[in-house]
Amino acid sequence: MTDIAVTLADKRGTLPPEDKLGFGKIFTDHMFVMDYATGKGWHNARIVPYGQIEISPAAMVLHYGQAIFEGMKAFRTADNRIVVYRPLDHLNRFNHSADILSIPQMDVNVLHDGLKQLIEIDKEWVPKSLGTSLYIRPFVISTDPFVGVKVADQYTVFIILSPVGAYYASGFKPVAIKVEEHFVRAVKGGLGEAKTPANYAASLKAAEVAKKEGYTQVLWLDALEQKYIEEVGTMNIFFKIDNEIITPALNGSILNGITRRSVLAVAKDWGMKVSERRISIEEVYEAHEQGRLQEVFGSGTAAVISPVGELSWKGRKITINNNEIGETSQKLFDYITDIQQGRVADKFGWTGEMAKL
Amino acid sequence: MTDIAVTLADKRGTLPPEDKLGFGKIFTDHMFVMDYATGKGWHNARIVPYGQIEISPAAMVLHYGQAIFEGMKAFRTADNRIVVYRPLDHLNRFNHSADILSIPQMDVNVLHDGLKQLIEIDKEWVPKSLGTSLYIRPFVISTDPFVGVKVADQYTVFIILSPVGAYYASGFKPVAIKVEEHFVRAVKGGLGEAKTPANYAASLKAAEVAKKEGYTQVLWLDALEQKYIEEVGTMNIFFKIDNEIITPALNGSILNGITRRSVLAVAKDWGMKVSERRISIEEVYEAHEQGRLQEVFGSGTAAVISPVGELSWKGRKITINNNEIGETSQKLFDYITDIQQGRVADKFGWTGEMAKL
Repeated sequence: MTDIAVTLADKRGTLPPEDKLGFGKIFTDHMFVMDYATGKGWHNARIVPYGQIEISPAAMVLHYGQAIFEGMKAFRTADNRIVVYRPLDHLNRFNHSADILSIPQMDVNVLHDGLKQLIEIDKEWVPKSLGTSLYIRPFVISTDPFVGVKVADQYTVFIILSPVGAYYASGFKPVAIKVEEHFVRAVKGGLGEAKTPANYAASLKAAEVAKKEGYTQVLWLDALEQKYIEEVGTMNIFFKIDNEIITPALNGSILNGITRRSVLAVAKDWGMKVSERRISIEEVYEAHEQGRLQEVFGSGTAAVISPVGELSWKGRKITINNNEIGETSQKLFDYITDIQQGRVADKFGWTGEMAKL
Repeated sequence: MTDIAVTLADKRGTLPPEDKLGFGKIFTDHMFVMDYATGKGWHNARIVPYGQIEISPAAMVLHYGQAIFEGMKAFRTADNRIVVYRPLDHLNRFNHSADILSIPQMDVNVLHDGLKQLIEIDKEWVPKSLGTSLYIRPFVISTDPFVGVKVADQYTVFIILSPVGAYYASGFKPVAIKVEEHFVRAVKGGLGEAKTPANYAASLKAAEVAKKEGYTQVLWLDALEQKYIEEVGTMNIFFKIDNEIITPALNGSILNGITRRSVLAVAKDWGMKVSERRISIEEVYEAHEQGRLQEVFGSGTAAVISPVGELSWKGRKITINNNEIGETSQKLFDYITDIQQGRVADKFGWTGEMAKL
């Protein structure tokens, strides 16, 4: 295990009622922190009480956005173990994002050890009700107090933890998505494949407009022709057409989703036909007209699977599967959440045990 | 004047020797701060001692990049006035960036008053040597402690001040620029027109590669065809071809530079032919082959004018004007810096007096 200095909080908080958790508003008692300086490398790995941080108003992250993050989840299993879903896949993707943003590579083992110790210390914060979890947010910020555009020389990585309620608090149900025609999230040669603040900043205006129009999120098309499907606001996207599961191929501007990988692996394992390829919004609408579009669903860490009941593109609305949850969406949601929460055997080896209660 | 609470620093710092200032590393004694909360609007405008700020590790800016900034300069004139160059143009652009990033509009008069009072308090920090200035950095960050993608409900705007040395400390001379073929900064429908961290985050990798290859900055081409010229890393770009001054037209993905506007206005005032239009890199290379490309230069707040002596595109290097400063580049640099520092009459009304010494 990595040598990590631990400073425990004087006072411990308590987990609120699990039906009041919501998402991303409550944090646990501790956080993992590690610093980087050019010439010194990553150093001073530590666990400290969760709380306000001090930075310079000139800290580069506030001005030039050199930053990355990850999002993953820990679950409390029926047999009282705490497992994290695909932690190494997430941490390796974290390093891939680091590379795209010119942030120095981190030792995945140090991060993994830090996360494990942090969860051990804060394990009472992992909720147990169906659908709840402990959301894990690793992130790196550039901290040099310097007002000029350059690759930074100082960084800090944090891991903070937030107990979160069931994503589908009011039931697992289809959402309405607007196909975005005006705004663009990312482009080939840009940052689209990285989990970095810039991509989310670029999504705010479109999401705000879509929400006012009654849609949950937007579906992004490619920046060049506004023709090919990329991803949804915070999810990858899948189409079931003629019993085939189709998702846009990774092209440099789409996030390489971990749940996306899980969906592909599970569907293949079930013997379904699975394609990662370029797919246009026209093809989807055509399939719908011909009665061949059976299901549409998103995949992501927060929602796991999110069935899409309605799409709207250039004012043309289509209803998918009578706005009901599709068979495959439901099966995938059940099976992946069963693996995450230890209700079925984890034949893929996706869950990593972090603590026992 | 706006009611701004002032808390003075117990101890005042002193301006370092003016030839040791560098850029963006030294900050003055005070900063302007104002908060926003949904339902309450912008409030609590204040001037406080410059120093570390406390934010939540979950502060939205660190995760989703909802932030904007500006960059402008104050100068000490020969007759001991302190003037800021085009402050209202900068503050209006600040609000335009806010709109693109879904950040609530600010009262430009409040910001202007805050800046004026701040400069009055810290006026001893404005350097006086030729080419030096006080760099002014207004910026807004989103501060809600919330780990989820949405438009924030809490923001803080800051104005910090940094005395900066002469940009051309080792003399005004042409730079070598690489025409970027792989990476992309911004795209139509994206954030390119906003002064927001995301655009700078997107520029880091390309700039890093270019620097290793011996270039100062990169020249960005359009994201769609990689054909039309957009802008340089931290500058807009101009070409003098057949005695005509040409700069790419604003198209939504180019920053609407304040110095760009000054160059256009001055060149027109001098009776030069000036065009804002789409211009391809091929056209520039063709003009060079035909001996019609007379000058290339960048414009920006930091450098004012930066002559370009060499361009490299797909391995084809061209030398511009024998790698010497062009006549127009020199004239523009001299005239605009003369206006800024009060050595010639400000017939355009660009300088705003902020304090007297």
